[in-house]
Amino acid sequence: MAVYTEVTDEELSAFLDTYDIGTVLSYKGIAEGVENTNYFLHTTQGSYILTLYEKRVREADLPFFLGLMQHLANKGLNCPLPVSNRKGEPLGRVAGRPAAIITFLDGIAIRRPTAQHCAALGGALANLHLAGQDFGMTRPNALSFDSWPPLFAQAGAQADTVSARLAERTGRELEALKSVWPSGLPSGVIHADLFTDNVFFIGPKVSGLIDFYFACTDAFAYDLAICLNAWCFEADGSFNLTKGQAMIAGYQAVRRLKSEEVEALPILCRGSAMRFMLTRLVDWLNVPPGALVKPKDPLEYDRKLNFHRHVRHAREYGLDA
Amino acid sequence: MAVYTEVTDEELSAFLDTYDIGTVLSYKGIAEGVENTNYFLHTTQGSYILTLYEKRVREADLPFFLGLMQHLANKGLNCPLPVSNRKGEPLGRVAGRPAAIITFLDGIAIRRPTAQHCAALGGALANLHLAGQDFGMTRPNALSFDSWPPLFAQAGAQADTVSARLAERTGRELEALKSVWPSGLPSGVIHADLFTDNVFFIGPKVSGLIDFYFACTDAFAYDLAICLNAWCFEADGSFNLTKGQAMIAGYQAVRRLKSEEVEALPILCRGSAMRFMLTRLVDWLNVPPGALVKPKDPLEYDRKLNFHRHVRHAREYGLDA
Repeated sequence: MAVYTEVTDEELSAFLDTYDIGTVLSYKGIAEGVENTNYFLHTTQGSYILTLYEKRVREADLPFFLGLMQHLANKGLNCPLPVSNRKGEPLGRVAGRPAAIITFLDGIAIRRPTAQHCAALGGALANLHLAGQDFGMTRPNALSFDSWPPLFAQAGAQADTVSARLAERTGRELEALKSVWPSGLPSGVIHADLFTDNVFFIGPKVSGLIDFYFACTDAFAYDLAICLNAWCFEADGSFNLTKGQAMIAGYQAVRRLKSEEVEALPILCRGSAMRFMLTRLVDWLNVPPGALVKPKDPLEYDRKLNFHRHVRHAREYGLDA
Repeated sequence: MAVYTEVTDEELSAFLDTYDIGTVLSYKGIAEGVENTNYFLHTTQGSYILTLYEKRVREADLPFFLGLMQHLANKGLNCPLPVSNRKGEPLGRVAGRPAAIITFLDGIAIRRPTAQHCAALGGALANLHLAGQDFGMTRPNALSFDSWPPLFAQAGAQADTVSARLAERTGRELEALKSVWPSGLPSGVIHADLFTDNVFFIGPKVSGLIDFYFACTDAFAYDLAICLNAWCFEADGSFNLTKGQAMIAGYQAVRRLKSEEVEALPILCRGSAMRFMLTRLVDWLNVPPGALVKPKDPLEYDRKLNFHRHVRHAREYGLDA
C-alpha cells in the first residue's frame, strides 16, 4: 500500500486539461499497488484510475502495456481501458512521472477463492490468451528462466539467513530445471502476475483483470502454472485438488491445452514457483529503511516448489485424464 | 496516509449485511487520514466511505461525532451523512474496530487556497456554527487551554532539541496566555480542525466539510482563529491580509462577530497556534519506528504564534473596521 508521488490539485487540473474527460470532482490516493501510485478519480464524465508509473516500471515498456490493455478491452475482455488524451496518446506525464488514466472497473478482489472462483479465473485466463493472439507487439519475459541465476546470485549466501540450506536447495533446483525446461510451447501474450489481488469479481463472475505491468510474450501454460500456484494452495501449504480441477477445466472450456502443454505443466509449476521465490527473496533481503510495503514471504514459494518436485503428471493438479 | 486495519471481502460482506445499502461492487483503501482507516466503497446503491476508528479516537466520543454529522447533514450542511444500519444505529464494528459508513462527498481539497477559497470557507464555517446551535449533545474540547501545560510537560526539555530555547519561549507564552485567555465567548459546536485537507471544493464553492473527529463545544471565534492560522499564512510564513479579509468577511456575511469576539481574536489566534504547536511537538518527539505518517513541523506554528504576539487588533487580520 503506497502513494509514492503526491499530485496537487493544480497539477491534476493541468493534466486533465490535456484530456477530454470532463472536470475533476474528486480524487483520492489508493493504498494499493506496490509498484505504482494510483488515484481514484471521479470527473463529470465518470470514474477512472490515474496511475503514476514509479521507478520499478521501465518507461520503454509502457507503450506495450497500455497498447495491450487497449487491444484487450477492444476485444471485449474486462480489463481497464487506457483513455487517450487530446493528442490521441494514452501516456502523459504528471508530477514528474509518466502517467495514464484508465477506466475504473467495479469488482472486489477475493482473498480466499473458492473452486467456483478458480473455475471462473481459468476461463478468464484462457480468454485473455485468445484475445491477445492478434496483438501486434511483443515483449520478452524479463523474469523468465534466464533471469533466475542472476537473481539467485543477487541473494547469494544471504539466502541461508532466511531458511537453512535455502541456497543449496535453490542451486540444485536451478540446475535440475535447466535440463528439463521446455521450449517451443504455444505462446503469446500472458499476464504473468495474475494473483488474487489482480482479479476482480462481482458475485461468482470475473468482472475484471488488472495490473498488466508484468505482461509479456511467453508460454500460455506458464501463465496457467502461475495461477495454479497463486490460487490453488491453502494457507497451510496444501494443494487443493478441487480448485486445481476447477481452474484447469475452466481454462480448457475456452482453450484446450495441447498435449505438450499438459506434459510440461509440472515443470512450469516448478519454474513459476522458482520465479516468485527468487524475486521475493531478493525483495526480502533488500527492504529499504522506512519501507511502506511489507515484503512477501519467499518461503511460501519454496514450499510450493517442493510440492511440485514430487508431481509426475498434470492429473495431480486436477487435469481430467 | 495509512490503512491501519485491513478488511477482507468476507468481513466486508458480513458487515454490509447489517445495512440496507445494496451489495458491494468495489472497495479500496484510501491513503488519507492519519487517525483512522478509510475505504472508498461502491455498492449497487451508491458511493460511501467506510471508516474504521483506530486507537487515537475514543470510542465513547463516537456517538457525539456521528450524531453531529447526522444533525448537520439534516440541516443541509454539506458534510458526510452517517448511514444507519438495520437497527437504526450509525455505529457498527468490523475487523475488530468500531466502524461507520458515511456518504461519499465529491470535491477536492485545495493545497494553496486563494482569497476566494478563504471567503467561501469563512461562510461555510459560520454556517456550521449556526447549524450546530440546536444540536443536543456537548463535548468539552479535549485540546483547550487546560490541556496545554500537560502537553508542554510531555515534551519537556526535549523541546529545545527541535529549536533553540523553544521550551523557554513556550513556557513564557503559556504564562502570558493564562492571564488573558478569554471566557464566556459565544460558544457551540466547533469543528476545531478545519485545515485545507478537511474542506472540499468544486470550483470556487465549498462542496463539503469532513473529518469531525476533533469537533467539540467551544468558542466560535476560536474556530475562526484556527482557520486564520491554517488558511491565511503563505509558505514563507507571512500572513496574507487579503485572505484574512476574505475569510472574516465571508464569515460575517453569515454570522456577525460580537464585539467581545473581535476583541479576543488576537489572543485566540495565539492560543490556537499554541495548541497545534504543542500537539505537533509531542508527535514530532514521539514518532514510532516504522511510522507511515510523516510528522508535521511544530515550528511552523511556533512562527505563527510569534506573529500573533505582535497583533494588537483584529483589523490586522483583515476585519473591516
